[in-house]
Amino acid sequence: MQLQEIGVVHNAYKSLTDIPRQGRMSAEISEIEIHPEFADGLLKIEQNAHLIVLYWAHLAKRDILKTIPPAAKELHGVFASRSPGRPNPLSLCIVELLERRDNILRVKGLDALDGSSVIDIKPYTQMDAITEMS
Amino acid sequence: MQLQEIGVVHNAYKSLTDIPRQGRMSAEISEIEIHPEFADGLLKIEQNAHLIVLYWAHLAKRDILKTIPPAAKELHGVFASRSPGRPNPLSLCIVELLERRDNILRVKGLDALDGSSVIDIKPYTQMDAITEMS
Repeated sequence: MQLQEIGVVHNAYKSLTDIPRQGRMSAEISEIEIHPEFADGLLKIEQNAHLIVLYWAHLAKRDILKTIPPAAKELHGVFASRSPGRPNPLSLCIVELLERRDNILRVKGLDALDGSSVIDIKPYTQMDAITEMS
Repeated sequence: MQLQEIGVVHNAYKSLTDIPRQGRMSAEISEIEIHPEFADGLLKIEQNAHLIVLYWAHLAKRDILKTIPPAAKELHGVFASRSPGRPNPLSLCIVELLERRDNILRVKGLDALDGSSVIDIKPYTQMDAITEMS
């Protein structure tokens, strides 16, 4: 299972320490530049207020299975954590779509490093909003 | 960017036509069997009521960029659709975690075919529930 880069992130996060812990809540604007050969995949994307972005966390360790998440004090398995380190370092971020200009998406709340490879984009739907959390 | 299979899906969906359109809302139970070498990654996962599952939609076409989503009448870009066909056929499903038995997760609402490769599991958090949809 081999992934293709569909686009690349441009923003002000040049190193991991630049990214606020709740990047999703930050006002920072990022641009996602979709490579021209995939731009047809953006048709009608501007109808969505929020998008799910999957990107490759290229600095993350792939050989760890336990980690202490930022808000926790004890070890958690990586599948019980949103930490980037995991066997397949795919990070998932829900962003607000501000504008589309051709193959460029301006989004708010993306917690990816500048230069990250974008793997997939999906519309966020009502079905994704689970409110009866236990 | 090469993916590893961390586990496999077991359920009653033997062909694509078996999967209800809103698989997420179905009462069907699936089991996710995490391969023993990744089972340490499950530590404390039972603390989560809902999980985000990323799986590989192995039957999906990777060379399409536009599709007509089930609920639509017009062509949409694949990045404006949740259809499995896309350059990187990673499907995302939010499931309810019913039980963990060692390296087996019993979940409700998974819309994957029996035998699908599981790529990643993440806890669903309050941050993922966006209620102010436009």
